[in-house]
Amino acid sequence: MVMNVRGYAAHSVDSPLGLFSFLRRDPRPTDVVIEILYGGVCHSDIHNVRNDWGNARHPMVPGHEIVGRVTHVGDAVGRFKVGDHVGVGCMVDSCQHCAPCGAGLEQYCENGNTLTYNDVDPHDGMTTYGGYSETIVVSEKFVVKVPDGLDLAGAAPLLCAGITTWSPLRHWQVGPGSKVAVVGLGGLGHMALKLAKAMGAEVTLFSRSPGKEDDARRLGADRVVISTDKAQMKAVRNTFDLIVDTVPYVHDLNPYVATLGLSGTLVTVGYLGGLEDQLNTAPLVLGRKAVAGSVIGGIAEAQEMLDFCGQHGITADIEKIDIQEINDAWERMLKSDVKYRFVIDLASLKREAEHAEG
Amino acid sequence: MVMNVRGYAAHSVDSPLGLFSFLRRDPRPTDVVIEILYGGVCHSDIHNVRNDWGNARHPMVPGHEIVGRVTHVGDAVGRFKVGDHVGVGCMVDSCQHCAPCGAGLEQYCENGNTLTYNDVDPHDGMTTYGGYSETIVVSEKFVVKVPDGLDLAGAAPLLCAGITTWSPLRHWQVGPGSKVAVVGLGGLGHMALKLAKAMGAEVTLFSRSPGKEDDARRLGADRVVISTDKAQMKAVRNTFDLIVDTVPYVHDLNPYVATLGLSGTLVTVGYLGGLEDQLNTAPLVLGRKAVAGSVIGGIAEAQEMLDFCGQHGITADIEKIDIQEINDAWERMLKSDVKYRFVIDLASLKREAEHAEG
Repeated sequence: MVMNVRGYAAHSVDSPLGLFSFLRRDPRPTDVVIEILYGGVCHSDIHNVRNDWGNARHPMVPGHEIVGRVTHVGDAVGRFKVGDHVGVGCMVDSCQHCAPCGAGLEQYCENGNTLTYNDVDPHDGMTTYGGYSETIVVSEKFVVKVPDGLDLAGAAPLLCAGITTWSPLRHWQVGPGSKVAVVGLGGLGHMALKLAKAMGAEVTLFSRSPGKEDDARRLGADRVVISTDKAQMKAVRNTFDLIVDTVPYVHDLNPYVATLGLSGTLVTVGYLGGLEDQLNTAPLVLGRKAVAGSVIGGIAEAQEMLDFCGQHGITADIEKIDIQEINDAWERMLKSDVKYRFVIDLASLKREAEHAEG
Repeated sequence: MVMNVRGYAAHSVDSPLGLFSFLRRDPRPTDVVIEILYGGVCHSDIHNVRNDWGNARHPMVPGHEIVGRVTHVGDAVGRFKVGDHVGVGCMVDSCQHCAPCGAGLEQYCENGNTLTYNDVDPHDGMTTYGGYSETIVVSEKFVVKVPDGLDLAGAAPLLCAGITTWSPLRHWQVGPGSKVAVVGLGGLGHMALKLAKAMGAEVTLFSRSPGKEDDARRLGADRVVISTDKAQMKAVRNTFDLIVDTVPYVHDLNPYVATLGLSGTLVTVGYLGGLEDQLNTAPLVLGRKAVAGSVIGGIAEAQEMLDFCGQHGITADIEKIDIQEINDAWERMLKSDVKYRFVIDLASLKREAEHAEG
């Protein structure tokens, strides 16, 4: 018994997304069935569909910032009940027996976790399809609760943009008095500002261009430094405990390393690839600085982050769209023309699907 | 009142070292006067004399691995008395009021510490001269005690090679069960093996060539991995908590990063410059790994390290030389023909000086 589900899929690297029917597995005893209400739109959705990372499986239903309502729970499910508001992020499974899984760091599962879309479920060999759809079936271990009171649409981006910035902020122990800088003001960057500020840090935004000052301050920045302005960069030399670099393309890290304080760390969360210009080790050695990386976050961390957001009333700044607008939204996203995350209202999919079925 | 002191100096980038007379300051109330018994020979002595770092002041008396006997203490000195065996490392002063100095991390002094040689004392404008000499005058804040029972000649290299590897091992919290790897088996590398082993870590040596197995095991390595052997490198993928990279020239860090475990750090202590090949951020991001740097260590750390070495009976493996052999020793050091540190017996200088005056 599998269920037929409607979603939006891309059938090739260059085809637009459109209505698509596919199968979800029959819920296992440990599964939660979720009616998807909102689905955030992440830059990686485009990378995946366009095969920028070389592992695209088409047809592909993207989406890994999922918020919805539980409509069914398996017999063995203990943490959720029908009607709960829940979230699903970038992963829907992991091996559960390696050391990282044991430490609640499923994002670093040594045996390869199962991604929410564009992956294969090792249990049944079925392709995974993401949040641009009406329903998803997920093991309860990979489902998190959305705290009461949070706007559900605004909460969706917390499942990727939120956790991706939360995890390094926590790992590098940001708290009151920490000096944190954020490179780039997009979906991830705007969440990093909000989260770091709520954690009590003194927060700086690095931006390549002026004009983001008001927005940055509203989002939590105490200061904006124009990274192309040498005097401004010099004024913040040897300053930051942690820099969260959200830039998703190759760029020179050396100017940012210069702004790290003693024993500071620059953590890149957005770019996978070789560093140009050459990273210079001299400032690392002479200031005990580090360049590190981090990817999304674990399930326990995601729940902790959502609870924190519930306590502090934090959601993403979003632009809500109907799923029929997704192809235009992608084009706009490629031009950074969104403040700061598109979120699909899946009610629009239901209307289209019902209309199509007449 | 200044005192006339004999040492060995280089008068230019390419002249051999030879007998040289120079002035030491009249001891201040906070100063300790030390009769130098042993002086370790560090690779950076050659770099400095040959102006590889662009800041050479000639004539230069090198040497920053100093062990000696206190012969005089100023009125305000509280921690030392005549006859004590003491050590002096790479620094002889720092500003004492910046945050790093306050934290006992004088090696990262924001206002520039004063190096033991090839520097200028900001108090009196006098050039600093190092340990290839018979006597040194140092503020007691920059003098450490050599524990009873340690071989004094073997203790000299602890003041640079020892503390340079100790400081990162401590900062990255190496202890029982830690998996530590060391890249390079020279003066620093052999100390890193000994110290990491004594701290309770499981220790691996990366070496580019076979043949070091017996020595490495004797020094503390549980395992030797030939870094040019792909199968051996693959066998240690995702393994180490900390890699201490002592290699003093440009080299590709990516193969070593691959052997870091989750949240592991590669710390370079030997190379200042741009990284070739390009450092790839993908393994950093996907394994929360870091590439960092570290330089020598603070005074309190140096005392802690010496006390630890006293408790564990750790000294460097040395080849004792007369100062008249120093130019040959440098040539051999450039060919890595030393196991693992040359240490000058300064009694040889006294004999030559007395004979010259004879």
